[in-house]
Amino acid sequence: MPWQDIVTIREKSPLVHNITNYVVMNTTANALLAVGASPVMAHAVEEVEELAAVAGALVINIGTLSPPWVEAMLLAGRAAKKNGVPLVFDPVGCGATRLRSRAAQELIQNARPSIIRGNASEIHALLHAGSGGKGVDSLLRPDQIENEATELSRATGAVVSVSGPVDLIVQGDKAVRVANGHPLMARVTGMGCTASAVTGAFAAVNDSPLKAAAHAMALMGVAGEMAAERCQGPGSFWPLFLDTLSLIQESDLARRLKVQW
Amino acid sequence: MPWQDIVTIREKSPLVHNITNYVVMNTTANALLAVGASPVMAHAVEEVEELAAVAGALVINIGTLSPPWVEAMLLAGRAAKKNGVPLVFDPVGCGATRLRSRAAQELIQNARPSIIRGNASEIHALLHAGSGGKGVDSLLRPDQIENEATELSRATGAVVSVSGPVDLIVQGDKAVRVANGHPLMARVTGMGCTASAVTGAFAAVNDSPLKAAAHAMALMGVAGEMAAERCQGPGSFWPLFLDTLSLIQESDLARRLKVQW
Amino acid sequence: MPWQDIVTIREKSPLVHNITNYVVMNTTANALLAVGASPVMAHAVEEVEELAAVAGALVINIGTLSPPWVEAMLLAGRAAKKNGVPLVFDPVGCGATRLRSRAAQELIQNARPSIIRGNASEIHALLHAGSGGKGVDSLLRPDQIENEATELSRATGAVVSVSGPVDLIVQGDKAVRVANGHPLMARVTGMGCTASAVTGAFAAVNDSPLKAAAHAMALMGVAGEMAAERCQGPGSFWPLFLDTLSLIQESDLARRLKVQW
Repeated sequence: MPWQDIVTIREKSPLVHNITNYVVMNTTANALLAVGASPVMAHAVEEVEELAAVAGALVINIGTLSPPWVEAMLLAGRAAKKNGVPLVFDPVGCGATRLRSRAAQELIQNARPSIIRGNASEIHALLHAGSGGKGVDSLLRPDQIENEATELSRATGAVVSVSGPVDLIVQGDKAVRVANGHPLMARVTGMGCTASAVTGAFAAVNDSPLKAAAHAMALMGVAGEMAAERCQGPGSFWPLFLDTLSLIQESDLARRLKVQW
Repeated sequence: MPWQDIVTIREKSPLVHNITNYVVMNTTANALLAVGASPVMAHAVEEVEELAAVAGALVINIGTLSPPWVEAMLLAGRAAKKNGVPLVFDPVGCGATRLRSRAAQELIQNARPSIIRGNASEIHALLHAGSGGKGVDSLLRPDQIENEATELSRATGAVVSVSGPVDLIVQGDKAVRVANGHPLMARVTGMGCTASAVTGAFAAVNDSPLKAAAHAMALMGVAGEMAAERCQGPGSFWPLFLDTLSLIQESDLARRLKVQW
Repeated sequence: MPWQDIVTIREKSPLVHNITNYVVMNTTANALLAVGASPVMAHAVEEVEELAAVAGALVINIGTLSPPWVEAMLLAGRAAKKNGVPLVFDPVGCGATRLRSRAAQELIQNARPSIIRGNASEIHALLHAGSGGKGVDSLLRPDQIENEATELSRATGAVVSVSGPVDLIVQGDKAVRVANGHPLMARVTGMGCTASAVTGAFAAVNDSPLKAAAHAMALMGVAGEMAAERCQGPGSFWPLFLDTLSLIQESDLARRLKVQW
């Protein structure tokens, strides 16, 4: 159950090291604090290895990348691997440009993420030329790329967590589906990046990357529904979403969760 | 009428490529999503040309610039021009430092923006030495620099869109004035940058840069008024402003719009 | 009294130049606008000296540093010193990595800040090897490092302002304690960075760095309490906090202030 992980995150406040994009640095830091984790953002090649080595999880996100950042991501990813720190990788905009596609491939091959978390277009683009996306937004649904997700999981050994109307989390033959969430979440920037950061918090406290990824998407989906029901639009959604991440209770999850293992 | 453009943005969800400053990356992405566009932020010289070439509009903003970013801006601007993609340029802080003044001149000369959108001090500084500004805030009103705006429009071929108590949008001899907006908007960071980003969404769906620029300022002004009337201060203004951008209706514009063509 | 400084900030709207981290650029700009100051963010070595020289205060924060930024911080710090512009320095994450510890030492030695503002772990790490922190979060309270704060103040000539359950502001033998604030503030990213930025606004209008630092922490604490009493969680806290910074009155401070000189 996700609830036990949430309790553990709130109790232990795991350090989550993020090398992420400029758009979501503030929002993902706040989401991690709201779930109870301790976020740190650091991207300099001179310091990422020290932080990644002692973190509970490392989250790498290529949403506004440039070559020096890719170098730091590779260093941090290797340091995490060497120290048994789980790595969550979000290939934002993979397929939209050659730089992003190359960086994503390089990171997966060299840093061996525990969990690859993206939208359906990005997961598709990791296996095929062409993006199927529009910039960083997906034009595909998770159920349309289930075979690719399975293939990617087998090829990389990673859990593949795909967000969409029904989230799909795949580990080899196993598939988990989370039917929570709300359409408004697609109108708020960085909700996918927030899902990746929150996945990092769960990966820091749950040794099963499949469970960590699924529990994170469950929390995102339920909290998103609860915030969406009370907000008036995408602007008032965000403060309510953070409040919900912070205040959510076991009964909220029990009543709303639509997870299929 | 701005309304038809808003309908088209909501239907087509044009891709708007932003090379902008760190302060507003999150807020402008959210504003673009709220109006119905699809934002992408990307600044690496290795990828900006690919994105700018396929975008509906390119928005360049020098609010926290450094030389590598200027190089990317020039590459992206040229790629946009080559592919017929309209460029909106926001010369944030032009006149405050030599770096900004030089970068602004270089961008205008090389990338030939369709629309130059700034505050009165910045537009003034594009034509004269000295800033007339305090950092990135204006000490001038649009009506005080109307001649400069006209001169700049003639010299560059761009529409010049100047925000202030009464916004002024100039194309050669033509001038449009938008008397909407609220003083509180000057107490929220990045409202000018948001206006530039939103102008990009309108430029992606309206072939007339004069109309695109004027319609964007009309939406900004009316949404700003509506949010300001319901908020308690600059903090509660922003979520309400995003909600309003997303939910605004034709009747809101019809009732409130104060545009003089 | 803090109130006179607040009135002066609102009247004069001092320019506060920030070289800060990506996580808080938007939030600290909004906080400075809310208190009535005029923020500018600029980090390029080509322009920081020009801005620092004309600012009312310079705020340097190493929360997401890299070597080119450290170079700009040193240039700006020296330009500020040369022009009599007070410098507030926030050693975010000092002790967490060697890069941060070295950069912090280098900045203090070369740029001679008027005010060093951090959490207890960071202040501790400025004097000792080892951090006592978890990433950027403190594991110490101000009262546990009072001797170090005094020693640091004597060694550097700076006022040392330490945030925590009871804030401690030290200048040589003098110590001020501010017992305002709310635990929720530790669950919102960048509240420490916001305290440093706001300290910059006070330093721009009050010639006593001890008073400027204490008054800033008093405003932060009282505004934090007022927002926390009305919010539902860390998400709804932030808009209310900005509203409160903007709308706070003398009577709010008079009623709530718990300052011990």
